[in-house]
Amino acid sequence: MRTARLEAFSDGVFAIAATLLILNVSVAEGRPLAGELLRIWPSYVAYAVSFVTIGIIWINHHTVMTQIGHVDRVFLMISVLFLTNIAFIPFPTRLLAEAFNHPDDLQAAAIAYGVTLTLTAILFNVLWRYAARGKRLLRADADPRTVDGIGRSYLPGPFLYLTATAVALLNPYVSAGLYGALALFYVLESALFGSRR
Amino acid sequence: MRTARLEAFSDGVFAIAATLLILNVSVAEGRPLAGELLRIWPSYVAYAVSFVTIGIIWINHHTVMTQIGHVDRVFLMISVLFLTNIAFIPFPTRLLAEAFNHPDDLQAAAIAYGVTLTLTAILFNVLWRYAARGKRLLRADADPRTVDGIGRSYLPGPFLYLTATAVALLNPYVSAGLYGALALFYVLESALFGSRR
Amino acid sequence: MRTARLEAFSDGVFAIAATLLILNVSVAEGRPLAGELLRIWPSYVAYAVSFVTIGIIWINHHTVMTQIGHVDRVFLMISVLFLTNIAFIPFPTRLLAEAFNHPDDLQAAAIAYGVTLTLTAILFNVLWRYAARGKRLLRADADPRTVDGIGRSYLPGPFLYLTATAVALLNPYVSAGLYGALALFYVLESALFGSRR
Amino acid sequence: MRTARLEAFSDGVFAIAATLLILNVSVAEGRPLAGELLRIWPSYVAYAVSFVTIGIIWINHHTVMTQIGHVDRVFLMISVLFLTNIAFIPFPTRLLAEAFNHPDDLQAAAIAYGVTLTLTAILFNVLWRYAARGKRLLRADADPRTVDGIGRSYLPGPFLYLTATAVALLNPYVSAGLYGALALFYVLESALFGSRR
Repeated sequence: MRTARLEAFSDGVFAIAATLLILNVSVAEGRPLAGELLRIWPSYVAYAVSFVTIGIIWINHHTVMTQIGHVDRVFLMISVLFLTNIAFIPFPTRLLAEAFNHPDDLQAAAIAYGVTLTLTAILFNVLWRYAARGKRLLRADADPRTVDGIGRSYLPGPFLYLTATAVALLNPYVSAGLYGALALFYVLESALFGSRR
Repeated sequence: MRTARLEAFSDGVFAIAATLLILNVSVAEGRPLAGELLRIWPSYVAYAVSFVTIGIIWINHHTVMTQIGHVDRVFLMISVLFLTNIAFIPFPTRLLAEAFNHPDDLQAAAIAYGVTLTLTAILFNVLWRYAARGKRLLRADADPRTVDGIGRSYLPGPFLYLTATAVALLNPYVSAGLYGALALFYVLESALFGSRR
Repeated sequence: MRTARLEAFSDGVFAIAATLLILNVSVAEGRPLAGELLRIWPSYVAYAVSFVTIGIIWINHHTVMTQIGHVDRVFLMISVLFLTNIAFIPFPTRLLAEAFNHPDDLQAAAIAYGVTLTLTAILFNVLWRYAARGKRLLRADADPRTVDGIGRSYLPGPFLYLTATAVALLNPYVSAGLYGALALFYVLESALFGSRR
Repeated sequence: MRTARLEAFSDGVFAIAATLLILNVSVAEGRPLAGELLRIWPSYVAYAVSFVTIGIIWINHHTVMTQIGHVDRVFLMISVLFLTNIAFIPFPTRLLAEAFNHPDDLQAAAIAYGVTLTLTAILFNVLWRYAARGKRLLRADADPRTVDGIGRSYLPGPFLYLTATAVALLNPYVSAGLYGALALFYVLESALFGSRR
């Protein structure tokens, strides 16, 4: 099976999930707009963090697919489960943004966000390891250094997000800060080292 | 006519219909979030079942298109009617998820879900049989075993969904369970046998 | 300039506009669902008519693009204005569906729907005539019969939709019926004659 | 890395952001529809201006990508940040349209719209300058005149939108008019000179 349609479907889900995030940003009616625009700052941050996080996963998915030569039904099914998680991200993003104005809900929201991202990171690793084990789906000319690099660089994802999720049990503000810091780290890491590869 | 744009339009509808499902997942305001996140478990199940169901239909559509060499206006029109059903799926999904908190509505919701999926399965068979009859639209090098396999494997779809719909008249909970079981069956069947093909 | 990205952007807008139509289908809460599902029948009809109408325009756009070899900025700009109308269709579709339960609003809704479709049909003709005049953007090997056929078959669109719009001034029910009849006519015409071309 | 998937993801975000604008157009229930359809004229103008503005940026992005031969992670990351702004446009568009019926909010809404468009224009320049500096990512056969033309024609964007934003401090109506005039200018400029290139 060709990889083109899997890329088209995946790109569609990535693009829609990211763009739907804007539906989470809204102001209350009946209050002065200038004040509302300042009050909802957590919405902007949550929007930017989740959009960039989805964008980073998309870039990594792009890197994975450059090494893959063909796909089978198992890989397609793992991809569907992976995309089920990607498309879920707008929901906990809204919860987290709104919880900043309802501190009692912040812990539950931070856990919901973290569980979603942890599951997404796990499924991304499953996706890659299924394709790479014994070079099952890799291109004949797959680059060994890139293949090794992918395996190493995606492994920490589930642990990092699981840790940030666990931190929410102690302090949900720190947990939310970690989600933002993870996105910022990946942006800076790409900005500083991304042109060398 | 080329098949590329039909695939692009179809992939778009599949991806958007699946991703819009997340708009059905929401919590009531003014109640503790932790409790709400547990209370709305039917929303998560309905989201996952419908996303995976759309994903499976997309995978099967992908398989069909690998055997098709060109399309005509009749095939395009059947595709539009088929996609009209695909894009409809988010509506009965929301009804079914919400009805779990309003048991009086569960029978109507389960029937609405089943009718939508049954029509989708019928149109998928119409789509395939129009293309395959007399090899009308198949590629010159279409694989006879794949062509036979598609015909056989898609035939039960309408009957299975019609049966699950009819069960709703007796017990809507069993009906809803069958929709989930059908999605799970296809996932497991792909996971167990999908790498052999 | 290549035509590939114009097709990708257009297919995206077509697919999203069609799929967003499902957001117009909803039931009132607090009433028995079975009754609600029957009461909102105009929503289903409006959904199907608009989805199929967008699908037909997409098929025709597909036919146009098969004859076009390159695009310029004027053509891209006309395409953007044309797509602005396509993406607008969900709004009057919702108005028309809801107005069936508020007969006082039916005339305004039918006119809004008709004006949108008339403008869309006009812009589609502008798009085609700009490309075809003096074979400005046509492929070197464009098929003269297809080119003539496109010119002839798209010309009646604006007049048909303008007529159906004008009928709304006399009787909005007849006008709404005409919008459905136009979609049905194109479906049947494709089903009966679409395999001969 | 190939440019195809970046184009697919970008086209997806452009198409979805533009098409979601229609969700901003709505009428109040319980009032005569004919009057409502006239009252909400700012919604139509805001819809058209933002759709066409996104369309123009898409056309320009298309032009940029024709000159680019490959992409690196920095470019992908800048693209994600750029698209984060594109997908944000529907939010200030809704604010601006609604503020025409709440004049007290018009200044805040015009500033929100202007800041979004200014940031978008800045990021588009960053995107281009990163790719073009030292011909870092340009195709070997990039056309020098087109490359120079892009650099020159995109430079004024941030200043024009920043100026229109600053005008909102004095008179938000003039500011809103300038946003519309900028879109109209680009449409007319393409219509008059677009076929010569």
